[in-house]
Amino acid sequence: MSEWILEYDGFDPEQERLREALCTLGNGYFATRGAAAEATASTVHYPATYLAGGFNRLITDIAGRPIVNEDLVNFPNWLHLTFKPEGGEWFNLLAVEILSYRQELHLKNGLLNRDIRFRDKQGNIFTLSTRRLVHMADPHLAAMETAISSENWSGKMRIKSELDGSVINAGVDRYKQLNSKHLETLNLGKAGDDSVYLVVRTVQSRIEMAQAARTRMFLNGKRMTPEIHSYEEKEVVGQELEFDLAKGKTFKVEKIVSLYTCRDAAISECSLAAQEAVSRAGRFTELLDSHTRAWHSLWRRYDVEVRAKDQAQLVLRLHIFHLLQTISPHTIGLDVGVPARGLHGEAYRGHIFWDEMFMFFFYSLRIPEVTRSLLLYRYRRLDAARAGAKEAGYEGAMYPWQSGSDGSEETQKVHLNPISGRWIDDHSRLQRHVNIAIVYNVWQYYQASGDMEFLVYYGAEMMLEIARFWASIATYNKKTKRYEIKGVMGPDEYHEKYPNSEKGGLNNNAYTNVMAVWVLERAIEVLDLLDEERRSELFEELNLKKEEIQRWKDITCKMTVPFHGDGIISQFEGYDQLEEFDWDRYRHKYGDIERLDRILEAENDSANRYKVSKQADVLMLFYLFSAEELGELLVHLGYRFEYDTIPSNVEYYLRRTSHGSSLSRLVNSWVLARSDRPGAWPLFIELLRSDINDIQHGTTPEGIHTGAMAGTVDLIQRCFTGIETRGDVLWLNPRLPKGLNSLTLNIHYREHLLGLHVTRTSARISTEPSTRKSIRIGITGEIHELNAGEVREFQL
Amino acid sequence: MSEWILEYDGFDPEQERLREALCTLGNGYFATRGAAAEATASTVHYPATYLAGGFNRLITDIAGRPIVNEDLVNFPNWLHLTFKPEGGEWFNLLAVEILSYRQELHLKNGLLNRDIRFRDKQGNIFTLSTRRLVHMADPHLAAMETAISSENWSGKMRIKSELDGSVINAGVDRYKQLNSKHLETLNLGKAGDDSVYLVVRTVQSRIEMAQAARTRMFLNGKRMTPEIHSYEEKEVVGQELEFDLAKGKTFKVEKIVSLYTCRDAAISECSLAAQEAVSRAGRFTELLDSHTRAWHSLWRRYDVEVRAKDQAQLVLRLHIFHLLQTISPHTIGLDVGVPARGLHGEAYRGHIFWDEMFMFFFYSLRIPEVTRSLLLYRYRRLDAARAGAKEAGYEGAMYPWQSGSDGSEETQKVHLNPISGRWIDDHSRLQRHVNIAIVYNVWQYYQASGDMEFLVYYGAEMMLEIARFWASIATYNKKTKRYEIKGVMGPDEYHEKYPNSEKGGLNNNAYTNVMAVWVLERAIEVLDLLDEERRSELFEELNLKKEEIQRWKDITCKMTVPFHGDGIISQFEGYDQLEEFDWDRYRHKYGDIERLDRILEAENDSANRYKVSKQADVLMLFYLFSAEELGELLVHLGYRFEYDTIPSNVEYYLRRTSHGSSLSRLVNSWVLARSDRPGAWPLFIELLRSDINDIQHGTTPEGIHTGAMAGTVDLIQRCFTGIETRGDVLWLNPRLPKGLNSLTLNIHYREHLLGLHVTRTSARISTEPSTRKSIRIGITGEIHELNAGEVREFQL
Repeated sequence: MSEWILEYDGFDPEQERLREALCTLGNGYFATRGAAAEATASTVHYPATYLAGGFNRLITDIAGRPIVNEDLVNFPNWLHLTFKPEGGEWFNLLAVEILSYRQELHLKNGLLNRDIRFRDKQGNIFTLSTRRLVHMADPHLAAMETAISSENWSGKMRIKSELDGSVINAGVDRYKQLNSKHLETLNLGKAGDDSVYLVVRTVQSRIEMAQAARTRMFLNGKRMTPEIHSYEEKEVVGQELEFDLAKGKTFKVEKIVSLYTCRDAAISECSLAAQEAVSRAGRFTELLDSHTRAWHSLWRRYDVEVRAKDQAQLVLRLHIFHLLQTISPHTIGLDVGVPARGLHGEAYRGHIFWDEMFMFFFYSLRIPEVTRSLLLYRYRRLDAARAGAKEAGYEGAMYPWQSGSDGSEETQKVHLNPISGRWIDDHSRLQRHVNIAIVYNVWQYYQASGDMEFLVYYGAEMMLEIARFWASIATYNKKTKRYEIKGVMGPDEYHEKYPNSEKGGLNNNAYTNVMAVWVLERAIEVLDLLDEERRSELFEELNLKKEEIQRWKDITCKMTVPFHGDGIISQFEGYDQLEEFDWDRYRHKYGDIERLDRILEAENDSANRYKVSKQADVLMLFYLFSAEELGELLVHLGYRFEYDTIPSNVEYYLRRTSHGSSLSRLVNSWVLARSDRPGAWPLFIELLRSDINDIQHGTTPEGIHTGAMAGTVDLIQRCFTGIETRGDVLWLNPRLPKGLNSLTLNIHYREHLLGLHVTRTSARISTEPSTRKSIRIGITGEIHELNAGEVREFQL
Repeated sequence: MSEWILEYDGFDPEQERLREALCTLGNGYFATRGAAAEATASTVHYPATYLAGGFNRLITDIAGRPIVNEDLVNFPNWLHLTFKPEGGEWFNLLAVEILSYRQELHLKNGLLNRDIRFRDKQGNIFTLSTRRLVHMADPHLAAMETAISSENWSGKMRIKSELDGSVINAGVDRYKQLNSKHLETLNLGKAGDDSVYLVVRTVQSRIEMAQAARTRMFLNGKRMTPEIHSYEEKEVVGQELEFDLAKGKTFKVEKIVSLYTCRDAAISECSLAAQEAVSRAGRFTELLDSHTRAWHSLWRRYDVEVRAKDQAQLVLRLHIFHLLQTISPHTIGLDVGVPARGLHGEAYRGHIFWDEMFMFFFYSLRIPEVTRSLLLYRYRRLDAARAGAKEAGYEGAMYPWQSGSDGSEETQKVHLNPISGRWIDDHSRLQRHVNIAIVYNVWQYYQASGDMEFLVYYGAEMMLEIARFWASIATYNKKTKRYEIKGVMGPDEYHEKYPNSEKGGLNNNAYTNVMAVWVLERAIEVLDLLDEERRSELFEELNLKKEEIQRWKDITCKMTVPFHGDGIISQFEGYDQLEEFDWDRYRHKYGDIERLDRILEAENDSANRYKVSKQADVLMLFYLFSAEELGELLVHLGYRFEYDTIPSNVEYYLRRTSHGSSLSRLVNSWVLARSDRPGAWPLFIELLRSDINDIQHGTTPEGIHTGAMAGTVDLIQRCFTGIETRGDVLWLNPRLPKGLNSLTLNIHYREHLLGLHVTRTSARISTEPSTRKSIRIGITGEIHELNAGEVREFQL
């Protein structure tokens, strides 16, 4: 199998939705699904989802069920292009005899190809080849080239090319009780001889979007002059092109499509902009050229080259490919967050959770500005987070667990259990730990980029306001003489409340408490980093008091962390009182028990009663911190911490986790790889299977898992190389696992582009020639000065 | 007169429009005019102009006259608030007997106060005091507090508070043939008991904007419960509040208003956002507190303290005040350019010209990010500039002389001469030199900020594409063995073409040619600054060829610069052939001859025939460059350049300039101040009068002159202090003119905030304590290392 091409031979209707998700095209501005789309008249929808974390707020009906949600809106389908030989029928992939079928996704230049040879009901044999791209240089453009030839038929051929505004959101089965129609068509029509346009508006958020499509035909490279008939329906606009086709001839149809919305900068009006864009655009091959150049630039920065067995190289590149299609340099300046499922699918409705925590290293070590732009998405919602804290009775800023357009809480209060068919109370909004992730992300971005300007004007304000929130949610227990955080949920979503309790939330979740201390420490540190002018400005603007800082310092010495007594950190206070779960019985009974919560609820039981975790919770601490750092934090809090309890903690929780989240596997692999790098490869390979093999049975067709995808690349990039950005030194501690023979990648550090080539015995580091100052590299315990343009090799 | 308060005693209807312009309030997001607005029922409109360089393209009718232009759209009037004692009439300032009238604009905290005591037709005496602000901390808010008391009347009092969507653009007389109605009302209504909202949309560009207004009443600080009657008209929504007023009592009305548009980030939908904003907002005094804190922060960075006679201090602060109301930290992230007339007035329809060239130093030396954001406005329109070059037959990017929303050319092809009433051909789009200003701005921003990231990812691309344009418009003359630039206009708009020529444009405009060489030199320099990776990326992306760079280098040695022969640089080739103008006769005949072009056209003559300039053209070279720099450029081109010809050039052109542009006075003052700093003060004082005294007779009411305002501050900041940012040194060469005793200001240089205090004999420089690296200061010829937290004093 190639290392650059994801290929499928043969058509398999059962696999179509998975392939569609894996072959989604995008450029960080818009995305297009639809593997089988272009030449069928099937009823499958082909969303181009737009602006993650985008549009809207959740509106619930009286029973509390979500009914309208435009956070993720499918864009009008531009792919529709089909043909009909005179006397035959409009081409339908499902109604013809497929003689051969091959699909290739070219990762190197973002091109999706499909070649089909088929016999129609009349016995005529046609071949159909399409090439499709969503343009990586001009984010407003997409293009499709379709070549059609007949082997044994001559006659009048008709082509139909449409823009279809009647699309609905129907990609996730369990959302089918929700409103699915989010677009209303405002305007459509002809634009010049060869083009049509369509303007739609989202129903609630009133965002106008316009598409224009230019359809031209070519024979032997020369423009054909078919008879063109344009037509307008209520929500569809299209053109039919009619011409004579001779047996054995191949003609090409080029469909160039543009997309603009009323939120785009530097336009007059989106319909005008869309129409101008297609009229200015070059031919398909010209677009492919500039598209390929743009992808080439991206790969030069983002590629990770591995010499390893299995499909590792291909899948790693597939992950990088999708990450760059979701968040790219085109995202800079857009008001978008990091969607849990990319721009690919409808699952989670485009809401923003905490997934960025697992993704930012991937972006920060390449083009830091991309991360900066995503952090500004949070900054713009700081006022909403302040309002959130105030409403909940806290101080500072409390970011919501799930959010969309305006940054208010969008987490559902009830959710549907598809097994029992019941709507269940949902307390997951109590996951206040999203307010840890945001500070972690700000801090790591600053560490990697050294971008003081960002820290001073945006980062510090978020950090201080979130620190305030943690200080205000923490209460002092006079008996234990320690601070406590009550009524929250940790990352593990199986535990929403104590069994038999009506109220949601748990007390002293270890992850939350330790990280809250870390947040307060960083807030204190950032105050020291600011110059006096800006510090006093912030004190004045935020009305920050000296006594508050005093309280922060006090909490960092006296926060509660619950232990079982045997060195095992308790996931939360009382965790050790819960019942052990009969894993074998349930595995035997149900097979797949990843979503134990749903199974138990359907049995009128509850996951809250058991020592079971959906995903890493305590283990998150070992993922985020080295043993030394975690030890320091706990010792500072006055707890005894023996390093050799780490393996027992890891072992304890791994045994009790069902991995109902793709992020959980990532964290576990990372934690295990840390303690046993030579043996980490098989687990890594297992992790790589998540999306390409849809190991969560149907979740990938609802959208790829961006957090897990970024996590695998990050595991290679940071865990196997041992990269850390501490002080003003870039530390490396490379040690490749068995199965991985070498590793080549570029990273961006303090304005330098570094080339890194690691084998099992050596590491080569090079910098680009430039006028930049030298940087310091720490490797095998020693610090080296590296000048621009230097190459250095180290034996390991 | 106070140094912080612009005050007017007594009401003068004749002066009202000027005062209205000078007292416009804004925050970089929206602005509000209307000095006499709030309590009158007059027909004056009170635009809050929105998003400079914003909306739309110019649409011309068949005769080429502009008919629709939404570049600058007046926002619905939110100020309307009036009252009526039972049996009397709605308050109308023009219909009552004014007993006292006082207006104060408080620059320190952006507060506009007005106190009126009057007797109505029934003989009742009322006092009316209003305080108004456009909020500097939350850019979406504005607020007005109105206190009303009756001295001798008791009875039922009615208040009317409205939002009015029926506003039109009518601020500029000569535009009255243009379409003036740019808003359509979409939706309006009640929002809770005490609030109303109004949603409008711009007609062509389809931008939705929403306002909400909350009106509450208080007596002795306690909320009153008047009878409220809400009403909705076609384009107006309002509330009437009725209650009993006792003689001698003072009640207060607080009107809090919010403004959102569909282009705002972090909202769900603008109407919802506006309604939520007023419901969450605090009381007027709370808003005033946070507003004052925000202004306090701004003044700490931007104030320029002078000890001098006359009104110098007040007017300087008025200029800074308006600059910060037009472009402020709130502008960061908005897609706005630098409007020639601020957000204040309708003149020039909000178009973007080259004024930023005169303004960026003001912003760059304080908060560089503000400048960065304005440069990105240009970057986003690079594609439009590429299309512009292509259409005109050139390579690279050619930015238009006047532009709006989508960055295409918006310069009128005909304009109205109000004297003759004729529509005249207009060639001013041939001012290609805007493509010099943009490169100059990018370069100066980089010099002041050291922001390599910007240069690498945005600046370099603009510089290279513009360099390409200049290289392609330049043609080689085999006879003279020099390059030439033909068919363009220089900054002086009196010269559009050769007399008797049909075609617009002139050949070898000296300013353009010299600066084109400077642009090419900088483009070559920037290529050297990039690291290899990014350089090759840019060569690939822009398809840049080695031979192109070769041609650039060739042009920088061989460009034509025309001279008269006596060391006078010719404004353009053939300038010396033009007739001398009889200045005395015309001054005698017309008095004000600033707009000689209009006068001559009305006489069926043309300014093209004479040695007359509307504004600095050749003199721009002496404004932008030191004698040394200019000398180097010319010598490199193979011309002899004697420094002592500078005064003769200055004298030559000053005698032939009518100053039909506010920028012209600025350039002249600067050029003269350079050669005679001790004597520069009177000219500076004259320059300060431009807007506050409306010396161009009516242009200030059409909008203040931001370029000239910034220029005066910059003259103090750079010319009198001798600040230059060269190499890695901040050079100072302070020398105060007679009349200016001392100067105190802060500047931002390479991440340091520097305090500067200059007297006639000494200069004190201090830095804020911080962890930043030391910087290098050059003063009186020596270079000094300055650490963070240091104070140093130098004798001059």
